[in-house]
Amino acid sequence: FLEPAEHFEYAGFRGLLLSMVVCCIVGGALRFFGRHNRGGQLFQKEAMAIVGLSWVMATILGAMPFYLSGTCTSEGNTVTFIEAMFESQSGFSTTGATVLTDLESPDLVPHCILFWRSWTHFLGGLGIVVLFVAILGQGSAGKAMMRAEMPGPTKEGSMPRMQHTALVFAAIYVGLNMILTAVYMLEGMSLFDGLCHAFGTMATGGFSTYNASHGQFAQLGEFRGALVDYTTIAFMIAAGTNFTLLYLTLLGGPRKLWADVEFRTYVGIILLVTVGIVFFGMKAGDQKFETFSSSVRYGLFQVVSILTTTGYGTADFDGWNNFGRGILLLLMFVGGCAGSTGGGMKVIRHVLFYKILGQEIERAHRPRVVRFIRIGGTTLDDAHLPHAIVVYFSMILAIFVFSWLLLITFEPGSTWGALETDSTLDEKLLDSAAAVAATLNNIGPGFGVAGATQNYAQFSQGAKLMFVWLMMLGRVEVYSVLVLIFPSFWRRN
Amino acid sequence: FLEPAEHFEYAGFRGLLLSMVVCCIVGGALRFFGRHNRGGQLFQKEAMAIVGLSWVMATILGAMPFYLSGTCTSEGNTVTFIEAMFESQSGFSTTGATVLTDLESPDLVPHCILFWRSWTHFLGGLGIVVLFVAILGQGSAGKAMMRAEMPGPTKEGSMPRMQHTALVFAAIYVGLNMILTAVYMLEGMSLFDGLCHAFGTMATGGFSTYNASHGQFAQLGEFRGALVDYTTIAFMIAAGTNFTLLYLTLLGGPRKLWADVEFRTYVGIILLVTVGIVFFGMKAGDQKFETFSSSVRYGLFQVVSILTTTGYGTADFDGWNNFGRGILLLLMFVGGCAGSTGGGMKVIRHVLFYKILGQEIERAHRPRVVRFIRIGGTTLDDAHLPHAIVVYFSMILAIFVFSWLLLITFEPGSTWGALETDSTLDEKLLDSAAAVAATLNNIGPGFGVAGATQNYAQFSQGAKLMFVWLMMLGRVEVYSVLVLIFPSFWRRN
Ligand SMILES: [K+]
Ligand SMILES: [K+]
Repeated sequence: FLEPAEHFEYAGFRGLLLSMVVCCIVGGALRFFGRHNRGGQLFQKEAMAIVGLSWVMATILGAMPFYLSGTCTSEGNTVTFIEAMFESQSGFSTTGATVLTDLESPDLVPHCILFWRSWTHFLGGLGIVVLFVAILGQGSAGKAMMRAEMPGPTKEGSMPRMQHTALVFAAIYVGLNMILTAVYMLEGMSLFDGLCHAFGTMATGGFSTYNASHGQFAQLGEFRGALVDYTTIAFMIAAGTNFTLLYLTLLGGPRKLWADVEFRTYVGIILLVTVGIVFFGMKAGDQKFETFSSSVRYGLFQVVSILTTTGYGTADFDGWNNFGRGILLLLMFVGGCAGSTGGGMKVIRHVLFYKILGQEIERAHRPRVVRFIRIGGTTLDDAHLPHAIVVYFSMILAIFVFSWLLLITFEPGSTWGALETDSTLDEKLLDSAAAVAATLNNIGPGFGVAGATQNYAQFSQGAKLMFVWLMMLGRVEVYSVLVLIFPSFWRRN
Repeated sequence: FLEPAEHFEYAGFRGLLLSMVVCCIVGGALRFFGRHNRGGQLFQKEAMAIVGLSWVMATILGAMPFYLSGTCTSEGNTVTFIEAMFESQSGFSTTGATVLTDLESPDLVPHCILFWRSWTHFLGGLGIVVLFVAILGQGSAGKAMMRAEMPGPTKEGSMPRMQHTALVFAAIYVGLNMILTAVYMLEGMSLFDGLCHAFGTMATGGFSTYNASHGQFAQLGEFRGALVDYTTIAFMIAAGTNFTLLYLTLLGGPRKLWADVEFRTYVGIILLVTVGIVFFGMKAGDQKFETFSSSVRYGLFQVVSILTTTGYGTADFDGWNNFGRGILLLLMFVGGCAGSTGGGMKVIRHVLFYKILGQEIERAHRPRVVRFIRIGGTTLDDAHLPHAIVVYFSMILAIFVFSWLLLITFEPGSTWGALETDSTLDEKLLDSAAAVAATLNNIGPGFGVAGATQNYAQFSQGAKLMFVWLMMLGRVEVYSVLVLIFPSFWRRN
């Protein structure tokens, strides 16, 4: 007596309940095995290991609802466990890449699973802002990123101060999610859509509940559609901003924002790239670039979406001119600000990298003049910082190149649909690079087969597993995962 | 009473004579203006500036024969001055990229111009091995690259020692050119072909006298064709080896070769990549990969040709499987050994970069243990070396990315022939990356429109000018050219 869709919705609900049971069992077991732990201080390496292992566990447990509910990637194809892990990792890491080809069919994806999917974004984003305080805020590089101005008890890195900061960050994050949901509903979304898209925006995640992604809301009409787009742009920019800075702005007004070199650079990049995209888009006569106002609306949205690593789409940038496509591919390697929910390499690392290079070139000319790197008016006295930045950049490059080589070598041509011709060969090389960049930097959409209007369903199981790994590596900023696989890390000094 | 071809050959001869007159006038004028120079010691920055300016002048003067002879890029299209500069720069920088579409037509390219074209390779290669001693051998990074074992007067960097070393290098270079010409002639080439291809091989240049590049010699028959191919492979490997090492091997036998970490890595890369290319090529059933012996012959040739930055082709790697294409694209960024005629980033820089990264990761775990980078059994005591390497890598990356963005933005779609479709968009992004990589690293052939069986004629004049610049930047290892444009360099301390 149940309709098929209702029956499937019930299966989704049962899947969620079963997953909760699994979580309770695993959690209970871990608590039981760790019952003799007396608390005490965590060492940095232990903290990093906990982050890495927790992320692995969250990925596996978060995959349960998709797997146990029998969610389908497409007609007749139930998700494999690897695909469930992909969806779960993509959620927690706020990447927003998906293997589900039809979100709107209640016979393929139950509504409660769709909500769980967006909820993983909310949890992932919350985890990131809190982890940033707990882990990254400890090291000197992290301190440089977090600004020394953060109010709280004076003893740096002390427990009460960290807890206080984490609480403030969490409050800002939850507050912004609530405000955005309310704004969305005022603009005409349902509660369900409002919540899911607020989670997707504030976590810089990018999961939508529609096949057309954020582009769906163009159906709200010319005015309300534009309003929703600009609302999302504003909140994506906020989500990609350092939460310390958001807090200071709440206390002291927007003057604080402009005093920050990372924020200035971040806004500068958005403006500069948007100008370029609007100019070349209108010149090439690309879709949505017919009028100036439309160009700004769609150009700005895509730039902010990629830079903040949200990955929502309102236009198919895959069909844009080559300047547009090329610069978006480069933007994937920039990312949001440190201490935000945004992924990627972060603006501050690029600023520091640029300063380090400038200093080195200067030093080659005048070896005897000792200079320090100044950022935001304060001198960085940490001699290790340049090394940490350079190592990070090199690791990202190495992981990118190696993953790309793996993908182009082992991914079958059938992923690209047609028989292999010269042009699919080119497409394969390029799409693979974009897919690796989009997952490693937690963006979501790439080019071509995994482009703005497509998804990751076509890729082989092996490739999907690699993407799961890349999303995790990107999200926990490489180190926390790598320490797990380098045994030398575990040797005591 | 002259045949058109004979008449054109005469024009070529006249062009060469006129160019000599121009050179004499320019040289005489420079000598006149510098007549009060009393000799004396050169400072490093002056030496670097001389290298940069000489290269600019050589490019312009070397372009004269092409321009004054009225050489044609294709039927009815006489070279522009930019195209003449492209051909000249490509020769001196031993890149071997060309804008001449039909080398075999005596109505388009006179034979004496064809010889001049190959002769610029010879001169360029000679300049590089001597410059390496004079310029790079002075800095500490250069010393690390040159090995301390080089015999000669003991006072390091002293004039007599440098002159001695430069003379030894030049003698080895000229000797190898002569031997290779003789071997080629024994294998069935004409004196003209033998000389031109010996110049192209020993300078790691890659200019051929045939449209089919080195592949032409397959016409010598199965056995003799293979013989020529393996001869070229052997001499390309020699040309990509540090000349210090070649000299030491002449004195002390091949044991010296294996003691060198850069040479071991270099040979290791060749073997490893060839195994991969043969395996995946045979698996994919690519052209020339029908039998194992053919796979090894053609796979090895292309790998050595790209790694040593020679750029000769015997197979169209553009049609290979994606592993083959992808790994060749990556190899473009490796290059030959330091102190060879090979271009690119050089194997030793990659070895050092890898060691620097390893040290940094180690240091992150154990901050208190001070370690030094050891290379070939000796400890590098230069604290500046890691910085120099990192800056160099970053500069190459920055130049690559920036040039790529320029090319995809401003190069018209008509370069790719057809109307812009989705697949030409992909091709454009990829071909542009390959063309920038192939010119910046002095390889020559790239992918697609500038691929193994194609040339650079299709590109716009602006793009050609950019390639001239990139070839120069790559060849003089970035620094010497950049100092010319940074005014801060010229301020006295
Ligand atoms: K995302
Ligand atoms: K070359």
